[in-house]
Amino acid sequence: MLVLSYHLTLVVPVAVAAVVGTYLISRYYSRASCSKGKVNLEQSKDTAKVVHSFDMEDIGKKAVYCRCWRSKKFPYCDGAHTKHNEETGDNVGPLIIKRRDA
Amino acid sequence: MLVLSYHLTLVVPVAVAAVVGTYLISRYYSRASCSKGKVNLEQSKDTAKVVHSFDMEDIGKKAVYCRCWRSKKFPYCDGAHTKHNEETGDNVGPLIIKRRDA
Repeated sequence: MLVLSYHLTLVVPVAVAAVVGTYLISRYYSRASCSKGKVNLEQSKDTAKVVHSFDMEDIGKKAVYCRCWRSKKFPYCDGAHTKHNEETGDNVGPLIIKRRDA
Repeated sequence: MLVLSYHLTLVVPVAVAAVVGTYLISRYYSRASCSKGKVNLEQSKDTAKVVHSFDMEDIGKKAVYCRCWRSKKFPYCDGAHTKHNEETGDNVGPLIIKRRDA
């Protein structure tokens, strides 16, 4: 019994130090890489750069464009920013282009 | 000398296992939280939801709107998406609203 507890007094501090040390280091590096995370996770990922262009004459009275990149109707807004903001604490919202009398 | 190597044969495997285990677990959780990361890191963070609305009559011939949220001229595009895409492997680009003859 004495041998076991001797081993434990040796092994447990080492294991705890290794766990805490590794956790702090990997948290540091993941936070650095996370803050440089992607904005667009799903839209047209086979495209080098997703650009949209619209002529005002084709817009009609009003159009609401997505800027959170989560909309199922991208490039148009479908309200997906609400769920995204709730999940992440973000504050993104759409861009509205309209006729003055709309 | 024998005692030291005996301790090492005990301690080293435990430390290695603790480091590898902790690393894998924290990578898993950080990836999950990272993929739900914020889109907007800097723009108007004191605002609950950043929405912009423009009347076509005020746009003139053409306007290029930022969708990467990194522009220093937000809501207008200043090309910041290029650096963002290079740093993160993302593929975001702006929204262009223009007159047909622009």
